[in-house]
Amino acid sequence: MKKEKISNNVIRRLPRYLRKLDELIDAGVNRISSTELGEQLGFTPSQIRQDFNCFGEFGQQGYGYNVPLLREQIAGILGMDRGYKAVLIGVGHIGRALIDNFCFREWGINLIHAFDVDPDLIGKEFSGVPVSSVDEIQAFLKKNKVDIVVLAVPRDAALPTANMLIDNGVQAIWNFTNVELVGPDSPVIVENVHFSDSLLALSYFVSDGYDSKKLKK
Amino acid sequence: MKKEKISNNVIRRLPRYLRKLDELIDAGVNRISSTELGEQLGFTPSQIRQDFNCFGEFGQQGYGYNVPLLREQIAGILGMDRGYKAVLIGVGHIGRALIDNFCFREWGINLIHAFDVDPDLIGKEFSGVPVSSVDEIQAFLKKNKVDIVVLAVPRDAALPTANMLIDNGVQAIWNFTNVELVGPDSPVIVENVHFSDSLLALSYFVSDGYDSKKLKK
Repeated sequence: MKKEKISNNVIRRLPRYLRKLDELIDAGVNRISSTELGEQLGFTPSQIRQDFNCFGEFGQQGYGYNVPLLREQIAGILGMDRGYKAVLIGVGHIGRALIDNFCFREWGINLIHAFDVDPDLIGKEFSGVPVSSVDEIQAFLKKNKVDIVVLAVPRDAALPTANMLIDNGVQAIWNFTNVELVGPDSPVIVENVHFSDSLLALSYFVSDGYDSKKLKK
Repeated sequence: MKKEKISNNVIRRLPRYLRKLDELIDAGVNRISSTELGEQLGFTPSQIRQDFNCFGEFGQQGYGYNVPLLREQIAGILGMDRGYKAVLIGVGHIGRALIDNFCFREWGINLIHAFDVDPDLIGKEFSGVPVSSVDEIQAFLKKNKVDIVVLAVPRDAALPTANMLIDNGVQAIWNFTNVELVGPDSPVIVENVHFSDSLLALSYFVSDGYDSKKLKK
C-alpha cells in the first residue's frame, strides 16, 4: 500500500468514514459512489476521493467503492487489525463507563487489565477486566506488551502517573484527565479527550441558531 | 462584530485556542504573536491569522494579540457568555462522570437538573445537581428554558428519548449514546461524542510509530 505523510485532518476523518461504512454494511449496501458517500457524510465527492487517494487507489471509475473492501482497508490503516493491547488506569466514573460501555474490541483493541488505588476495587473484575493495585503497574508493564494506556485518574494524579508510565516505556496514552501531559516535542503519543471541545462547538452552533432566528424576525 | 459563515474546521479549532489562551493567562502572558501562538499549538502563523480573521480583527500588526481580550472574544463567539442552561438525561457512569468531574460552569453552561429511571437515584443530588424521574422531563421543559440536553442514556433508550425531546421543542443535544439520532437534514443540532474517533486516531499514530521504527532498522 502506498504510504505518504497523511495530514491530521484526513486521519481525523477516517473514523467517521469507518462508522459510515459499518452502517452501510449493516444496511446491506455493497457498493457506493463518492457522490452518494459524500451526500451521506456532508463532504464533497472530490474531498472523499482526495482523502482515499492519500492511501492508495480504493475506488474504480464508474463503479464507485466496494464497501466491505474499503471498510477493511480503512480499518487496516487505522491499525485495527494489529491486536493492540491496552490497560486502563483509574476505575472511577469515566473508567467504569469505558470498561462497561465502550466496546474496545469493536475497534480492534484488547483491554486486558485495569488499575486503581481504591482497595474496594482492587481484586474485582468489571466486564471481564480485572482490577489490580496501581503499585503493580510497573511489574505488569515489564511482563506484558502494552500498546496503549488509557489514563482516567483524577487531575492531581495525572502528571505523576504519566511520568511514571513514560519512564516505564509507555509510548501512547489515551488521556481523559484534561491535563496536558507532554510538551509538543515529546516522542510519546498522547491523544487528549477534551469533552469541552465538543460542548463548545455545540454551544457555538446553538448561538448561531439563535442569532439566525433573531435575524429572520 | 463581523459575522460570516464560518467553516466547521475553524469552529473545531476555537476551543483549542481557548484552552491555550487560558493556559497563557494562568502563566501571566498578556501578549502573544501569531508566530509564537502557532509554535505552541503546532499551527502556522498564517493559519492562525486566517482563523481569527473569520471573526473580525483581533490582532495588531507588530503587536500581536492581547491574550485576555482574544480569550474574551473567542469565548463570546463560542456562546460562553450567554448563560445557557443544560439538563442531563441518564445518570449512569458517564452521566456521573460528567456531573462530578466535568466543570460545565467553566464553559459558561449551567447544568441545572438531571433525570434518570433508577428509583435509587431519583430524589438524590450529585455535586449540587438534583435528579428527577425521566417521567418529569416534559413538564420540566415546559417550565424551564433548556438550551442543551446532555444525553447519556443506554443505547436502547437513545432514539425514543431523542424523539421525545425533539417533540418537546429541544433544539440541541450533546449525544454520548453512540447512536445516530437525526438525519443530516434535521434542524436539531446534535453534537456526537464518539470516543472511538479519538481512540482510532491514537491507534493510527501508534501504528505509524511502529512502522517508522521498523523502517529505521
